[in-house]
Amino acid sequence: MAVYTHVGSEDVSGLLEQYGIGPLESVKGIAEGVENSNYLLHAGGQNYILTLYEKRVDVDDLPFFIALIDHLYDAGLPVPRILPDLSGSHVQSLCSRPACLIQFLNGVSVERPTSRQFWSVGQALARMHNALSDFDGARPNTLSLSGWNDLAASMAGQFDAIAPGLESEVTAELAYLSAHWPKDLPQSVIHADLFPDNVLMSGEDVTGLIDFYFACRDITAYDYAVTHGAWCFSADGSHYQPQFAASLSKGYINERPLSEAERAALPTLARGAALRFLLTRAYDWLNTPADALVARKDPLAYLRRLQFYRSADAAAILGE
Amino acid sequence: MAVYTHVGSEDVSGLLEQYGIGPLESVKGIAEGVENSNYLLHAGGQNYILTLYEKRVDVDDLPFFIALIDHLYDAGLPVPRILPDLSGSHVQSLCSRPACLIQFLNGVSVERPTSRQFWSVGQALARMHNALSDFDGARPNTLSLSGWNDLAASMAGQFDAIAPGLESEVTAELAYLSAHWPKDLPQSVIHADLFPDNVLMSGEDVTGLIDFYFACRDITAYDYAVTHGAWCFSADGSHYQPQFAASLSKGYINERPLSEAERAALPTLARGAALRFLLTRAYDWLNTPADALVARKDPLAYLRRLQFYRSADAAAILGE
Repeated sequence: MAVYTHVGSEDVSGLLEQYGIGPLESVKGIAEGVENSNYLLHAGGQNYILTLYEKRVDVDDLPFFIALIDHLYDAGLPVPRILPDLSGSHVQSLCSRPACLIQFLNGVSVERPTSRQFWSVGQALARMHNALSDFDGARPNTLSLSGWNDLAASMAGQFDAIAPGLESEVTAELAYLSAHWPKDLPQSVIHADLFPDNVLMSGEDVTGLIDFYFACRDITAYDYAVTHGAWCFSADGSHYQPQFAASLSKGYINERPLSEAERAALPTLARGAALRFLLTRAYDWLNTPADALVARKDPLAYLRRLQFYRSADAAAILGE
Repeated sequence: MAVYTHVGSEDVSGLLEQYGIGPLESVKGIAEGVENSNYLLHAGGQNYILTLYEKRVDVDDLPFFIALIDHLYDAGLPVPRILPDLSGSHVQSLCSRPACLIQFLNGVSVERPTSRQFWSVGQALARMHNALSDFDGARPNTLSLSGWNDLAASMAGQFDAIAPGLESEVTAELAYLSAHWPKDLPQSVIHADLFPDNVLMSGEDVTGLIDFYFACRDITAYDYAVTHGAWCFSADGSHYQPQFAASLSKGYINERPLSEAERAALPTLARGAALRFLLTRAYDWLNTPADALVARKDPLAYLRRLQFYRSADAAAILGE
């Protein structure tokens, strides 16, 4: 949520020349995305996003992201294309960092979505999954079961500094998920991080699915579980909103029905999704000074979701 | 250089209704300005800046800034008007903070200005000074001589942790400036912080003078000295660029000739300006953890400017 690399306007103008775009009318560093530096440009009467990739994104993954977004764009999904320059190259070098010029999408992230907006998000997620059923890009999910075990092991002995009893909760959950994680469900590339921040809307319509930097190959229905956890609770995880969950699932199922096996696995997948964000938030909590400028997100908000999912069945998750 | 207060798109839409502006098409937090939260909005086909004032800006000063910018706008200067809502109010409340909707200005900050751009900056500064000669707003400069003494006193005993010998440099300079600070030069409201970041340009033309939050009443020619120090050196202060200083001064003097008294005082004013930024950078240096996300600006870059100004005459400063 910051600009890590400062880019001068002369450098941006020079870059845009490679795309045949200009003149540069405005450039503003924007505070969003994962740990990249992002600029919103006005040039030649259009808006663009310029992203400089900092160390958190592996340059070797950029061809995967470019192919993924192109695939979704060709299927009619509202995704921000990574634009090729006049020579056809999608990745440039700017200030010693890989950089991409990206299509700007109108729309805003909603904070208090309506039922109809939930329905649209479910629909967009399902359309994305349908479109990805024939996309063969391969990027492993480093934040799935084995990754969670590794991440938890790296924090062994420290969880209870966040909240007493958290370590035994995590240990028990990892044991449960290791024993019960589904093995034969349909897989595809998934977004894996479809939080409200990453969905742009105009009125009731989804106008943008953005920030694909966690996209990876995993169980398709796990993406539904991630999205459910991200959208269907109060921020602190203490209140579940079944009426919104119902709208999300109707929008989704209308485009991509869930199989019986996917339905049956939903509670387990949702527990895994909750644990995944619990663990990464716990890691950031333990490794970010309390007085840092970056707000720490409360890991316990995901412990509460996890506790909800332990006693939920598929019907509760789908708001039926 | 960050967004301190998160504002939801629904809240922004609600605010824009008070202005008769909509629909909201996009909202991005931008990383600029002093310690305020700034958003770049697209709404109803136009761009706007939304600023939420954090504690560093005193709400009681907002009427001064609004009147100042209106005065400059009426005089034809390219400044970002603070827009009134349908009821005529310029200041709103958003997320428990005072907030203003501000005109968006095209243009980019230059990093490697040309001589012609230096000339334009000098011209714009002089035109601003001419326009302010009949502006009677009063806001004291808390960062003038007495403020420097107070600020230095608050860091007594700590300067040499930045660089050995810095404390005696500062003490000697404060003594010199206390004895020699000019008392009878023309005063006006001045910008007081016209760094390249705060000037927007399109080609060779100045299209925006922005960020007036340090504006105050002080010696008019002191503003020239601040601008000179901000623009005419390499960033680390080690290289003076007399040919650019000449362009700056020609652009300025063409619009607002300097009196003999102002010329004679320039070296002293420039020493004061260099000390002012040395002191505030030293304060930030001593009070910002070395590993903070916010980059600390080197106080010594202004010690080097100060050392240059000690042996410079007016002709050297004006590039003559």
